[in-house]
Amino acid sequence: MSELLEQVGRRAKGASRRLAVLGRAAKDAAIHAIADALARHQDAILAANTADLEAARAAGTAANLIDRMTLTPARLYAIIADARSVAELPDPVGEQFDAVELPNGLSLHKVRTPLGVVGAIYEARPNVTVDIACLCLKTGNAVIMRGGSDIARSVAAITTAVAEGLERAGLPIDAVQSITDPDRELVRELLRLDRYVDMIIPRGGAGLHRFCLENATIPVITGGIGVVHVFVEGSADLARAVPIIVNAKVQRPSVCNALDTLLVERSVAPQLLPVAAAALAVHGVDLRCDEEALAILSDAPGADTWLLKPAAESDFGTEFLGLILSIKLVSGIDEAIDFIAAHSSGHTEAILTRNAAAAERFTREVDASAVFVNASTRFNDGGQFGLGAEVAISTQKLHARGPMGLRELTSYKWVGSGDYVVRA
Amino acid sequence: MSELLEQVGRRAKGASRRLAVLGRAAKDAAIHAIADALARHQDAILAANTADLEAARAAGTAANLIDRMTLTPARLYAIIADARSVAELPDPVGEQFDAVELPNGLSLHKVRTPLGVVGAIYEARPNVTVDIACLCLKTGNAVIMRGGSDIARSVAAITTAVAEGLERAGLPIDAVQSITDPDRELVRELLRLDRYVDMIIPRGGAGLHRFCLENATIPVITGGIGVVHVFVEGSADLARAVPIIVNAKVQRPSVCNALDTLLVERSVAPQLLPVAAAALAVHGVDLRCDEEALAILSDAPGADTWLLKPAAESDFGTEFLGLILSIKLVSGIDEAIDFIAAHSSGHTEAILTRNAAAAERFTREVDASAVFVNASTRFNDGGQFGLGAEVAISTQKLHARGPMGLRELTSYKWVGSGDYVVRA
Repeated sequence: MSELLEQVGRRAKGASRRLAVLGRAAKDAAIHAIADALARHQDAILAANTADLEAARAAGTAANLIDRMTLTPARLYAIIADARSVAELPDPVGEQFDAVELPNGLSLHKVRTPLGVVGAIYEARPNVTVDIACLCLKTGNAVIMRGGSDIARSVAAITTAVAEGLERAGLPIDAVQSITDPDRELVRELLRLDRYVDMIIPRGGAGLHRFCLENATIPVITGGIGVVHVFVEGSADLARAVPIIVNAKVQRPSVCNALDTLLVERSVAPQLLPVAAAALAVHGVDLRCDEEALAILSDAPGADTWLLKPAAESDFGTEFLGLILSIKLVSGIDEAIDFIAAHSSGHTEAILTRNAAAAERFTREVDASAVFVNASTRFNDGGQFGLGAEVAISTQKLHARGPMGLRELTSYKWVGSGDYVVRA
Repeated sequence: MSELLEQVGRRAKGASRRLAVLGRAAKDAAIHAIADALARHQDAILAANTADLEAARAAGTAANLIDRMTLTPARLYAIIADARSVAELPDPVGEQFDAVELPNGLSLHKVRTPLGVVGAIYEARPNVTVDIACLCLKTGNAVIMRGGSDIARSVAAITTAVAEGLERAGLPIDAVQSITDPDRELVRELLRLDRYVDMIIPRGGAGLHRFCLENATIPVITGGIGVVHVFVEGSADLARAVPIIVNAKVQRPSVCNALDTLLVERSVAPQLLPVAAAALAVHGVDLRCDEEALAILSDAPGADTWLLKPAAESDFGTEFLGLILSIKLVSGIDEAIDFIAAHSSGHTEAILTRNAAAAERFTREVDASAVFVNASTRFNDGGQFGLGAEVAISTQKLHARGPMGLRELTSYKWVGSGDYVVRA
């Protein structure tokens, strides 16, 4: 371990002890102080971002990545507003639960605590710096952040503002640290800093998540990869099914809870598919169909204006993140559930049905962070679920599954009080 | 990845899908069928164990390790009784919680699910095989076990019996698999089987836990290492403090929640220490004292019969697992809390006090899986807490902290139902 990372870890741990005992008012005041400092530092932050963008353009970075990296006055204003809204949320730390009095007179309960120190590793988006800093501060956690090297100047400028906010609020600046040194080995070291860091949150693509899993000795919250299915069961209201399929696919195709594969019970495919294809064609969705679906669609009126082609095997089990949909016919719910088990990433799955037994079976047997009945897959989202904030969407099964809010940035401890009781 | 582990993983995953949808009655029946099979296979299990013990003795294995490896008819009877008692516990799978109806009409709740596939890696104790198999089965999880190579014959014989029980109960034998091939590389492979395995539970010493952390790409529940302090604050009832100190130290000194270091507020040390030392001397406890404590104790009446010696720096922050206690005087609660923060393993800590504010501060600021006020540290235990079963005691902060019962072998998923609702 390098002396740099050892120091960063030790400082974060020290700060975490101070944060852990703060009440809500002190934490909220610090968040507002950070928001104020970000506003004061707007020019410096935007100038640093401009420098990052120039370097990225010179290096031939793709336009969509440039867009993700870009800060504007309006975007910075939204980031600051989001920070202030975190202050409005209830503070989960200190909540008591699972209280019980044991026969020996020991009063026992759990109390919600901060995790301690969170490590956040992210790509491209400088706003994550503010986002994670405020969510961690709200939950009494110190945080060590490492943004992508292409946004290092932006992250450094934001971190300077955050530090000023912390300082004015009387909190240790070590509560929020960023590693901006471009040496990639430092990421590997951060992932092994288990002596100080309690949880790693990766925010980025599948490669980043895999890198963290492979290299971390600290628990990693993986997620964010969605291979998403909607199964139209034979009893579904077909007319009402179409808007759900369209919403799931096109409302925001670039995100993880967008639909990738449509499974249709064979008996209703001839009625459903042409209507669905026509509705999807309006949005320019490329349809990759299995043999049977292609046969039905190719002969339908209007087919010449649709983007139809045969599905390759690789079109199933794939997260498209764009206007592509694969379509497969199945004999019924058994085959649908088996197909999903074989191809899903465990993120979001849905059934459309009027049969209560089918709905019950699907929700019980399908293994995903969220399973919907007669609803769009786009609802699997912390904001939609009313969590107030979303740290990540977890597809692993420990600690937290699905959208993670503030509560999922906490742990608990057991507290027991007795009248000088001993174990027999 | 070897073909062997790939197959083991795939089979476990397949079995986990069947287990996940079982109701309580089917799982309890299977546990009783396993208990019956273990009784029928008693001779074969004991013979295999005898062969393990002979090989271990020939290899010069230490007596305490031999004892942990040993099965007898009485121990096997107790193992079978413990298995049946798991069947009596409530089944957490299927519990619904955190229900909410969103403004758009989407009904949302969480439902408790199995984790999927658990990996258990353990040393020396063959009974863990039955223990973990039944706890996993009860919670609908498939399990892949790897016992120490020194108990491979015992584990194989037990696994054969478990398989027969599963078969008679009509469940897939792949629900409980043991890797008995002695190749140590297979442990490393199991730790990287993240495609199939959801959680790793190590049961053994610090070295095993570290090995799992270093090598796993799967979340590891670490714990079981307890560097445990009791702080006697100045207002404590000193007469009643002594039985707690003795209980915490000697009731079962070989376990993780036993006391290691006694911290005493300087002002009460002259009254407390001689009485405590005399009481501990009865049990043969070796006292390793800081300079001030040694000065007080050396001059006390009866000191010639006590096992007193100066503490080395390494006597603090050490888990003794035996009849040794280190003693240090502190100026008050501030120094006690700082000392614990620097030396604790986050397992179990206690304060003895009559001052409510001190108790409140100690429980809030001390970072451990369980913090006690006026109670023995020996209470940090799943059985004592009424969990019915104990999978492990976790000292990490994600998912579960402190004693883990059946609920901690589960995850949850979100289930949402609507009337064909789409996201705006």
